[in-house]
Amino acid sequence: MHVIILAGGSGSRLWPISREFYPKQLLKLTDNTSLLQATFERISSFVEPSKIILSTNVELAANVKIQLNKKVIEENVLSEPVSKDTAPAIACSMKFVEKLAKNNDEIVLVVPSDHIIKNISKFADCMKNAENLAKKGYIVTFGVPPVIADTGYGYIETIEDKDVEKINNKAFKVKQFTEKPDKKLAEDYIKSGSHFWNSGMFMFKISTFKEQMSKYMPEIESVLSEIDFDKTTDIPFMSYDKMPNISIDYALMEKSDNIVMLPLESDWKDLGSWEAIYDVKEKDTHGNAIAGKVIAKKCKNSLIFGNSKLVSAIGVNNLVVVETSDAVLVCDKNKTHEVKDVYNDLKKTNNDLYMVHKTVYRPWGYYKCIEQGEGFLTKIIHLSPRQQLSYQMHNHRSEHWVVLSGKAKILLEDKEYVLNPGQSIDIPLKAKHSLQNPFFDDLEIIEVQLGDKLIEEDIIRFKDIYGRENK
Amino acid sequence: MHVIILAGGSGSRLWPISREFYPKQLLKLTDNTSLLQATFERISSFVEPSKIILSTNVELAANVKIQLNKKVIEENVLSEPVSKDTAPAIACSMKFVEKLAKNNDEIVLVVPSDHIIKNISKFADCMKNAENLAKKGYIVTFGVPPVIADTGYGYIETIEDKDVEKINNKAFKVKQFTEKPDKKLAEDYIKSGSHFWNSGMFMFKISTFKEQMSKYMPEIESVLSEIDFDKTTDIPFMSYDKMPNISIDYALMEKSDNIVMLPLESDWKDLGSWEAIYDVKEKDTHGNAIAGKVIAKKCKNSLIFGNSKLVSAIGVNNLVVVETSDAVLVCDKNKTHEVKDVYNDLKKTNNDLYMVHKTVYRPWGYYKCIEQGEGFLTKIIHLSPRQQLSYQMHNHRSEHWVVLSGKAKILLEDKEYVLNPGQSIDIPLKAKHSLQNPFFDDLEIIEVQLGDKLIEEDIIRFKDIYGRENK
Repeated sequence: MHVIILAGGSGSRLWPISREFYPKQLLKLTDNTSLLQATFERISSFVEPSKIILSTNVELAANVKIQLNKKVIEENVLSEPVSKDTAPAIACSMKFVEKLAKNNDEIVLVVPSDHIIKNISKFADCMKNAENLAKKGYIVTFGVPPVIADTGYGYIETIEDKDVEKINNKAFKVKQFTEKPDKKLAEDYIKSGSHFWNSGMFMFKISTFKEQMSKYMPEIESVLSEIDFDKTTDIPFMSYDKMPNISIDYALMEKSDNIVMLPLESDWKDLGSWEAIYDVKEKDTHGNAIAGKVIAKKCKNSLIFGNSKLVSAIGVNNLVVVETSDAVLVCDKNKTHEVKDVYNDLKKTNNDLYMVHKTVYRPWGYYKCIEQGEGFLTKIIHLSPRQQLSYQMHNHRSEHWVVLSGKAKILLEDKEYVLNPGQSIDIPLKAKHSLQNPFFDDLEIIEVQLGDKLIEEDIIRFKDIYGRENK
Repeated sequence: MHVIILAGGSGSRLWPISREFYPKQLLKLTDNTSLLQATFERISSFVEPSKIILSTNVELAANVKIQLNKKVIEENVLSEPVSKDTAPAIACSMKFVEKLAKNNDEIVLVVPSDHIIKNISKFADCMKNAENLAKKGYIVTFGVPPVIADTGYGYIETIEDKDVEKINNKAFKVKQFTEKPDKKLAEDYIKSGSHFWNSGMFMFKISTFKEQMSKYMPEIESVLSEIDFDKTTDIPFMSYDKMPNISIDYALMEKSDNIVMLPLESDWKDLGSWEAIYDVKEKDTHGNAIAGKVIAKKCKNSLIFGNSKLVSAIGVNNLVVVETSDAVLVCDKNKTHEVKDVYNDLKKTNNDLYMVHKTVYRPWGYYKCIEQGEGFLTKIIHLSPRQQLSYQMHNHRSEHWVVLSGKAKILLEDKEYVLNPGQSIDIPLKAKHSLQNPFFDDLEIIEVQLGDKLIEEDIIRFKDIYGRENK
């Protein structure tokens, strides 16, 4: 079995902790493990790493690789050059799997990376069980027996079917997929006994997927034929950009009549809102889930996260307060599904707050804007061992670097300098320079930029003295 | 008439906007004028500046002078060397007034600096009216006819008195002062018709105050005899520290039987809580008072202040949200009187958040800590024209300065350097140095401190090459 882990989602629903470039799957919501890391661990308990494919996008790939450090096969991390919905991402990943698989009878499991599943052995058993159905040519989905009338999930409606039961007496034929219902409808679903929460996972033979793609997604199939993973591991932008922006649910699941469902009984949760996070958190005797620098007085049934500065809450009830270094959310706990509206507002107005945190993670380390004023911008730059920034120059700013920790190798107009903590260097306007850390410890510097136009785009990159060009 | 403006109060009730070193009177709560500035303007409409005395403390004096720039007579700003309650502060100020006054029959008005009074001409009329009573030897207080049963104010209970009425037919004899009442009691007060809000202002002859001090505050009187304002304009610490820490209300007002009250009908308000601030602010159609970077959706009857970063509020009702660069307050609007408990908690645990803002104002300018990490601390230092920092050295840190704007004169081991924007200098461990701005423009630098002990106390001050020692 091969597994495709979908790790390209954006981060609107748990804003301001999640961002477009730091979405839910990267967050450590319940313990010191991110949802992505937990997903990878869960999958690798029954599939070897060489058979696990990560489908993500160029903006997230660095963080995905950092979080799965040394566990994931780096070549198996596929990056969309531009973000599309799940159908193109899965189709591309399937083409990549074809290359790895012995033949088209092999089974593939597709799973999201941002769900919580507690009972791993039950999960693995269920997947094994599903293989028989997939081998018979079905698309197998996994439905969670609903515990409450949750309006945050989509539902799968099932009907009994003798043919399916013959193969697997636990399985149902899928009648239809439904959108997130309102409260009344969700209650009807629960009573019906035939509705399950849609876990968003599915399994099929490679050949089944190809047949179904021909039938229901011919426009994806035709673009896909341009991509040849024998020649490149990057997905070419020109082809991928032609793909329709459509989810696998709309493109395939809601159309195919070849779908069955197995119940998944392994404590599954999709933490899709701050209310859902509150529900799984440990609470004090007043029903408060509190973390970080918080002073709470006379509060009840509230979620309060202080992240970068002190949050003081007095006499509040049923509230969500989430603070990060550049934004604060204060939200009625029953209205946390509207957080995505704020996210979308920010996106529409090009406010970076939807996209990145104050700390921006890059393949070489991270940087953080700590202060900005008229004519200056101050950053902390963290360069991991054996990493370097490109050989570059700026037309509108001089830079000034002070080493805080570690050791910096600096290339300035083709001369080399090595600086220790407390030492500094001026990078004049238009001088070619590169910051490098060829050493074994992390390097941290403070950069002060001075100039009339302090934007990321003011950068001209050169090949360095070794002929390499880096980002 | 002389006027003493009490401007030494701490800032617990409007935390996190107010702090111990940046209390309510310095805040610009309703327009671009601080309460202190408005008070000074109000008073100077009928009293000349040379007769206005500011009573504050050493920590606030710089800000008081900055806010009253060029209007206040600098010698008339008296600073408590250590904060005591109002009785010692007023007694000291009275001794200072004695020096200015022609004789002890002169009248003195004492007013807080953090109240709002809209109708200045009615206020001035009332003060004139009060002079007659004060000349007859009464302590005159000013009671505001209560509009609602407010539990945030102290009340003055009056009785009619023929002798008092003969001098001024609007005046009442004071029966007693009462503490802030609960709701029930406040409602009884309103019904009685004999209760007024205590405006905290009073007026008396110098001789009346001296008599009353002898009678009711002999321990203050005896310490006061040690202070001689002919010899010094500073209040000596050794004497002042011996004064009891007691308010003028406890020490005198509640004991004296010589007190009368005049009604003050000039739209008086003491904005003593965030709820009170909400009440005076302009609201949108949903009853929200919103300022700063805020996205509010489906909110009602709430006060939302975003100061340094985005505040997003969804579906909240009757809430106060106040954000500053180092703290966030989220509080039920009916519980804002409990904000002082958070302030006191912070004070008890020596958390600087009760005391100062991230930006700390000093007589020479201000500084702001922008980032702190292991072994380093980064500040922006703003030095006003013609100002300088002391000639100093540090045992535990090196410093690194980058000029952002203006021009810096730097003294380093008795050598002089002049630096322009973008230029920088290293201050090694234990090197004597001074940052100076002898020029006409503001100077702004970034300071990076590196060392094992980054505390304000690691400083040894020297006389500079001109023999001066500065703070």
